[in-house]
Amino acid sequence: MSVDTVSSSPNPSSPGSPSAPNPQSPSSAALPDAAAASVSLSPIYAPNAGAPRHIRLTSHAGGFGALPIRWGAATATERGPIVGTTTTRAHRNVIGTHSGSYSVYRALAVAAGALNPQHKADLTNTSPTDLIGPYPQWSDPGRIVSLDPWGAAVADVFSSELAAGYDIRPTIAVTQAHVILPEVIEALQTGRLKADGKFLTAGGAAMVTKAAIEPVWFLPEVARRFGCSETDLRRVLFEETGGMYPELVTRSDLEVFLPPIGGQTLYIFGNPRDLANPEVELTARIHDECNGSDVFGSDICTCRPYLTHAIEECIRGAQRGGVGLIAYSRKEGRALGEVTKFLVYNARKRQVGGDTADQYFARTECVAGVQDMRFQELMPDVFHWLGIRKIHRLVSMSNLKFDAITGSGIEIGERVNIPDELIPADARVEMDAKMAAGYFTPGAVPDAEELKKAKGRGLSE
Amino acid sequence: MSVDTVSSSPNPSSPGSPSAPNPQSPSSAALPDAAAASVSLSPIYAPNAGAPRHIRLTSHAGGFGALPIRWGAATATERGPIVGTTTTRAHRNVIGTHSGSYSVYRALAVAAGALNPQHKADLTNTSPTDLIGPYPQWSDPGRIVSLDPWGAAVADVFSSELAAGYDIRPTIAVTQAHVILPEVIEALQTGRLKADGKFLTAGGAAMVTKAAIEPVWFLPEVARRFGCSETDLRRVLFEETGGMYPELVTRSDLEVFLPPIGGQTLYIFGNPRDLANPEVELTARIHDECNGSDVFGSDICTCRPYLTHAIEECIRGAQRGGVGLIAYSRKEGRALGEVTKFLVYNARKRQVGGDTADQYFARTECVAGVQDMRFQELMPDVFHWLGIRKIHRLVSMSNLKFDAITGSGIEIGERVNIPDELIPADARVEMDAKMAAGYFTPGAVPDAEELKKAKGRGLSE
Repeated sequence: MSVDTVSSSPNPSSPGSPSAPNPQSPSSAALPDAAAASVSLSPIYAPNAGAPRHIRLTSHAGGFGALPIRWGAATATERGPIVGTTTTRAHRNVIGTHSGSYSVYRALAVAAGALNPQHKADLTNTSPTDLIGPYPQWSDPGRIVSLDPWGAAVADVFSSELAAGYDIRPTIAVTQAHVILPEVIEALQTGRLKADGKFLTAGGAAMVTKAAIEPVWFLPEVARRFGCSETDLRRVLFEETGGMYPELVTRSDLEVFLPPIGGQTLYIFGNPRDLANPEVELTARIHDECNGSDVFGSDICTCRPYLTHAIEECIRGAQRGGVGLIAYSRKEGRALGEVTKFLVYNARKRQVGGDTADQYFARTECVAGVQDMRFQELMPDVFHWLGIRKIHRLVSMSNLKFDAITGSGIEIGERVNIPDELIPADARVEMDAKMAAGYFTPGAVPDAEELKKAKGRGLSE
Repeated sequence: MSVDTVSSSPNPSSPGSPSAPNPQSPSSAALPDAAAASVSLSPIYAPNAGAPRHIRLTSHAGGFGALPIRWGAATATERGPIVGTTTTRAHRNVIGTHSGSYSVYRALAVAAGALNPQHKADLTNTSPTDLIGPYPQWSDPGRIVSLDPWGAAVADVFSSELAAGYDIRPTIAVTQAHVILPEVIEALQTGRLKADGKFLTAGGAAMVTKAAIEPVWFLPEVARRFGCSETDLRRVLFEETGGMYPELVTRSDLEVFLPPIGGQTLYIFGNPRDLANPEVELTARIHDECNGSDVFGSDICTCRPYLTHAIEECIRGAQRGGVGLIAYSRKEGRALGEVTKFLVYNARKRQVGGDTADQYFARTECVAGVQDMRFQELMPDVFHWLGIRKIHRLVSMSNLKFDAITGSGIEIGERVNIPDELIPADARVEMDAKMAAGYFTPGAVPDAEELKKAKGRGLSE
């Protein structure tokens, strides 16, 4: 990789001054190591503020005190902790920081003077309510590349590093909850579900263990999943985000990235340890976020009805001695975001011929350039974290999810489709389009004539 | 601001080599403009690939072709478009890029070879279903600082710039939907709501206009909202995110930032134009995301019950000639993220004395360093975008939201609390703690003795 240097002014307020660089021409000085500048500013958070500190535009390899990460090592001690702290910079061994995109709010808290940037989390009483693993999959090379299997247990497994002053944060939290869904209450009332007092109360509360998981990407293996070189992955992650985290391209020694994206939430019905036992029937759904349906009940898609149907299946599964799992991923609008999603809705409903299944994917591609950005390649990691080897009942019709899960070595038994009576009228377009594109269906796949029929409402209806 | 330079190796694979910098000592050469390096790599997306391109670690002031942004100008033409494209770099006039954190997925799409990075959105038929504004608030200085009021109308108001080849993306999309919530169906069945065929069908579908909004921050005024200097805001946004976007500190000429965080979604019941008419009764709720309750119905908080109550109030308001608004903000777990939220749940339920209201905020502060990171300072912007001058019925008990809205010049009439019968048993701790901290309540504020009572379940219950 050849390296040269171009100049940039950290103080561009006088673009006409003699020292202003010409942005079109590279600097004549080819300094391979001149990639950082520091800018001194007045301190912000008042307590113990001394002389102005310097800003470093990028970080340095070979700093003192950073602990090595040996991804996929057999034990936590060998693997080493993920340190994404913003307090003691020399301890950092990753690119990015904790809490996904909420690190931006953390910065606002410091700017507003509400948060001491030196705050270290007091982890007293926060440890997981249920022990997950360790499982052999945790050290099986390339099996888990997008989360830290030790992320829930840092207070235990890295206690000596914590005592030595390292600011190590959990990237996974496990707790217990009672969840009460109106659809489950309705299922109790109509007799589809029966209360047992253990998995489901007479009041409609289902007992769950739940886990929140932040993404932790081991870049060499993430690149392999996407079939590109690590160098290329680092480059596009930097360039296609408009220049986020220069360390992606300057610090090839840092192999772990905490991307500022949403993570996952798991809801487990029954005993979490049973997930790793292929003899115990597992009912599972991977659900990708759809705020418009999941929360507000929009009738243009099947998201919430399919989710609540899966929850019902999970409860029934637990009641007959099995275990249930919902893995909820923050990938709004096929990971295109909600603005793009709404633009596509308008284009679908206004096109000549109306909202038809045969144009369903094309309208997304016109606006977004792709049909889908969810990329299920990383999704099975969470199953391997849970020790899962077999999913007896997958509550999903997606061939992309099916292929990703089985391709990662997990066996799938039955596939459970959404019952016809749960499909809202306006969501028929989506269903037909997906079945024609390869989604699982126990029924007939719609033919070309069927796909041309306008089945979606117009915008004014 | 004094500037000097420290060195960093873009190729740290040979830390022992003679050219490797000492990370502890600043470079002796004080070059104020040596903040960028370019690294040549092989091209990734194959079509039309020529010679290897260079990576620029930071960008340059004074490039050709970037259109100026005059924030708060009276017309779209004077204001100029927001250009966050990653295709023609010289056209960019902001820090960051579109789609919030989903830009990371966009990068994955390019890495996987699924997306041509030169793709430009085809905006045919995507324009808003309902015209919002322009309103006088759009050019009232400092009134709107965290979204682009022209963001929904770019295809119209910047048509000449689009024709000239600028890649301008909507940051707001407006569409229409039918939303069907089980709680609304239940309200119809019990007679709390009546179908009218216009705002609410007999089947329980409510007619809404909805809008998705991505954040667009004008940094000088965002800093003013948080009571700090722009320089300090830029610095903490860079440092406390672990070094995201060096342009925050190197490009003070770029005043607009597209942060990689979640945005907002609006649900409007009734005629959106009526929002700007203070004579028309407006029922409104600002709701901050809580996936655990909003989607899954966890009984530890009041989020979904309060949200569905607000939707019911909005429908009734529209039916009696008013208009309703739900503004949903992606600020999971008080903008601390869900991992922190679950850690706090465990700490609350395991502490000596059990889950009590008097320790409710303290437990969050131990883990997160603050009680809340939602910072309502930017929240009222969306009301000003909609032209709102008066909220007749605010469905919220939050004093922080009330203060932010009235402080921004909007009148609030009545405040609507959550009915007692909708508060889940385990959420009593949160309710008591919030009322004691200043939340609105028409009833009695719990006293110190009351706050010490353990009202939350234990973890094993």
